[in-house]
Amino acid sequence: MNNEAVPLHPAEAVDTFACCLLHPCHRSPQPRPMSDDLFDTIVSLSKQRGFIVQSSEIYGGLSATYDYGPMGVELKRNVKEKWWQSMVYQNDDIVGLDASIMMHPKTWDASGHTEAFNDPLIDDKASGNRYRADELIENYIRALREEGEEAHAEAVRERLVEALNAGEEMNDALHAIIMDEEIPAPESGAFDWTDVRQFNLMFETEMGPVDGQTVFLRPETAQGIFVNFHNAREPARLHVPFGVAQIGKAFRNEIVARQFVFRMREFEQMEMQYFVKPGTELDWYEQWKERRMKWHESLGIDPSNLRFHEHDQLSHYANAAVDIQYDFPIGWKELEGIHSRTDYDLSRHEEYSGKKMSYYDPWEEERYTPYVVETSTGLDRTLFMVLCDAYYEEEVKGDTRSVLQFHPEVAPVRAGIFPLTDKEGLPDIAREIEDDLNQHFNVRYDDRGSMGKRYRRQDEAGTPFCITVDFDTLDDQTVTVRDRDTMEQDRVAIDQLATYIFDQTANWEASA
Amino acid sequence: MNNEAVPLHPAEAVDTFACCLLHPCHRSPQPRPMSDDLFDTIVSLSKQRGFIVQSSEIYGGLSATYDYGPMGVELKRNVKEKWWQSMVYQNDDIVGLDASIMMHPKTWDASGHTEAFNDPLIDDKASGNRYRADELIENYIRALREEGEEAHAEAVRERLVEALNAGEEMNDALHAIIMDEEIPAPESGAFDWTDVRQFNLMFETEMGPVDGQTVFLRPETAQGIFVNFHNAREPARLHVPFGVAQIGKAFRNEIVARQFVFRMREFEQMEMQYFVKPGTELDWYEQWKERRMKWHESLGIDPSNLRFHEHDQLSHYANAAVDIQYDFPIGWKELEGIHSRTDYDLSRHEEYSGKKMSYYDPWEEERYTPYVVETSTGLDRTLFMVLCDAYYEEEVKGDTRSVLQFHPEVAPVRAGIFPLTDKEGLPDIAREIEDDLNQHFNVRYDDRGSMGKRYRRQDEAGTPFCITVDFDTLDDQTVTVRDRDTMEQDRVAIDQLATYIFDQTANWEASA
Repeated sequence: MNNEAVPLHPAEAVDTFACCLLHPCHRSPQPRPMSDDLFDTIVSLSKQRGFIVQSSEIYGGLSATYDYGPMGVELKRNVKEKWWQSMVYQNDDIVGLDASIMMHPKTWDASGHTEAFNDPLIDDKASGNRYRADELIENYIRALREEGEEAHAEAVRERLVEALNAGEEMNDALHAIIMDEEIPAPESGAFDWTDVRQFNLMFETEMGPVDGQTVFLRPETAQGIFVNFHNAREPARLHVPFGVAQIGKAFRNEIVARQFVFRMREFEQMEMQYFVKPGTELDWYEQWKERRMKWHESLGIDPSNLRFHEHDQLSHYANAAVDIQYDFPIGWKELEGIHSRTDYDLSRHEEYSGKKMSYYDPWEEERYTPYVVETSTGLDRTLFMVLCDAYYEEEVKGDTRSVLQFHPEVAPVRAGIFPLTDKEGLPDIAREIEDDLNQHFNVRYDDRGSMGKRYRRQDEAGTPFCITVDFDTLDDQTVTVRDRDTMEQDRVAIDQLATYIFDQTANWEASA
Repeated sequence: MNNEAVPLHPAEAVDTFACCLLHPCHRSPQPRPMSDDLFDTIVSLSKQRGFIVQSSEIYGGLSATYDYGPMGVELKRNVKEKWWQSMVYQNDDIVGLDASIMMHPKTWDASGHTEAFNDPLIDDKASGNRYRADELIENYIRALREEGEEAHAEAVRERLVEALNAGEEMNDALHAIIMDEEIPAPESGAFDWTDVRQFNLMFETEMGPVDGQTVFLRPETAQGIFVNFHNAREPARLHVPFGVAQIGKAFRNEIVARQFVFRMREFEQMEMQYFVKPGTELDWYEQWKERRMKWHESLGIDPSNLRFHEHDQLSHYANAAVDIQYDFPIGWKELEGIHSRTDYDLSRHEEYSGKKMSYYDPWEEERYTPYVVETSTGLDRTLFMVLCDAYYEEEVKGDTRSVLQFHPEVAPVRAGIFPLTDKEGLPDIAREIEDDLNQHFNVRYDDRGSMGKRYRRQDEAGTPFCITVDFDTLDDQTVTVRDRDTMEQDRVAIDQLATYIFDQTANWEASA
């Protein structure tokens, strides 16, 4: 696609079937019935085991924001570290960046967010409840399909697509569908609607008691990379093709249903923008598609729970886009988007800033504005996936064993260290092992309760290895290492423990 | 100090001589003339070498916000990692947490920020410029001292302290000093002031297109730990004394002078709240004072550039407080505060939430609200310190060598890897070394320019080790490792490289 040939009207980007660019991840193509049990179980264990809890819980909670507890913060650290390693350290042509959350407001004019990063909302006058107009219609289409009214559903779907592409007419077009189909309000059952209006999803605030400037909390991290195109490239002496990687918070003021950390108003992204020569972008796009899928699998995720989902329609500035989806308890949903964004962003920033955002190739002796292939992952939903995929229960000797089968590399605690008793100096030896292993990964000492209880506790926390110092240790300087998944035990020399755990980690595969 | 004996009026906390609690780090006790050269040099090299650059630079920059470039983000990662290691992994009784930036607004009622986290501002009617009233008076006192009018200065200082403790009368009292002393506006020279008014320093925004709730961006990370007192303690099965550690962004809408990353509107904190039995807090306070000073020294900072600064006056809820200061180019300034905060925060949250925020000691069989000793570090200013302390220039064979003498553990790149030429497979061997070492720390391959240029480039980036693969490598499987500080070279076997670098790192000391 030649970018110059398409009109640069950002309103187009509101198309919510091609939503992953300006407005990622709004819906999956084939919603499945929610697996309520698993969803509730994950939410509940997340709180009980110290992974994730709603923000400001003692004050009744703050909607769609979450805090990571002692276990959650370690899981998050490990997943971030694995991403950073795979992006920045394993690629000579990719460097890191950490841009601020608050950016100059012109950034969002250039990116199109000021004008087009909106949700079309409508109010039920009876209840005062507010809804997304497009979601009302989608749910209506789904209901028609469930009732077997396929032709009717398809007709409404076509009208919806048309409405979402109607630019300035979108609000009226959505409203007309709701009127014509007489769609009632979900809670009140009333049919008494206001007009459809656009609400911008960016959080805004006033900066500076002196300068008093309206600024926005970034709705995506990507723009921090685009505005720093030169500041990243030049000191690192990089030439196209090269990439810039970033992990950081973003904020979207959405209507959020009950989706746990899948959709939050404050969330964290892991994004990499890869700058390439125009014409080569689709090759890079294919490469990154494959590499990113492999990365998700490397977290220990069952590959059958991962899939690509190609976009039916593209935002005007994209010439290829795909999602990596995971089979969440709330259905197949986007985990990551891989987008070939052309030179839209750099060109727009050049237009709005008056600064050259192009690259001079010293070998080919030509100047051009690079195209961008981006990979954009939601960190919180990645963690949600890791929790869902790791969780299982099984019967062991009449007891229920609850396990989080994390890949050892991302497990919050790599090893539990237990002295069998508090006698004959066993605790001292266990403490020495703890100090030594702590230099390599997070380990936790536990001397409370029976061995069985300690194992169960670590199973619930997802700790892959449990090391027990017992009386034999005094004779032969070996300890027992118990495997979380198989529950089998090995006898390992203390001075070989780190190596043993590294080896087991490198060779780990999820058991059924 | 018995917390119950003092009135809990948060306005007291505005006292800016005891400012480090509600309002950390506003000023150092003995301002020194700014070392302009070093300040400018650090700002300039930060941009050129990819450490730190003003946010949204292509749009003229956003005031008091900064972005970390390819080198800066690695330095930041390493310092954060070192802090996390020293807090969470090396202490069985400390766990991590990662709370959201947006919190329920009642949090800030309880903490006192809604009412008392203000700056007293005054406008010059002639220019329209706005100033902090207390800073105007302080600068006036300084000027009096410089003119030798010590007695006059001391009298004004006493009035200022009185004004800052005047609670609701503070604004009028500050205004009266400016009027009585006829302090002119700094820029316009006019003496035509408005009244003094309080401006709250919290950024506010509206959350939710449906719920429409005013929320604040947290001005400190600490409250995220207090409200999660139970959510952190219970899953981790911790008993008092224990600590909770957190790294995260905080936001303050201050008037900010030219201070680079020392004072930012968006900044990052590393905080640890340690919960102790009442009566033991001053012992713990002394312990943490010493441990925190050692940690800063462990970053490779010259100890003569670090000092404690005891607070002359304390906020009403503190019974001990000290700053760790660094001798910045802008004077001795606070790097970290260590505060004994009593049970103020937990008690207030109990009062405002109606939830019990106490602890039951199962051994002593008693229930109490723990006291808190906190250590609160500014991450950005820690990085500013690391840059200032590491920078030096020297003459080498008639050339100026510019070096960032980072501790190897925090250096953005641990080792540069150079093939001497592109002949006889030297690049392949260098790439193999790169792949191997990248598993342990960040290394960078460089084959561009003469060896001298590559060394200078790594000196400027602060890379402690440079590894050269040369023709001898083909024969004996050894490489040259050149030391950044001494510029001396060792010959090291390839299979011993990681061990060699770990050993050198462990034994590293800054040379003069």
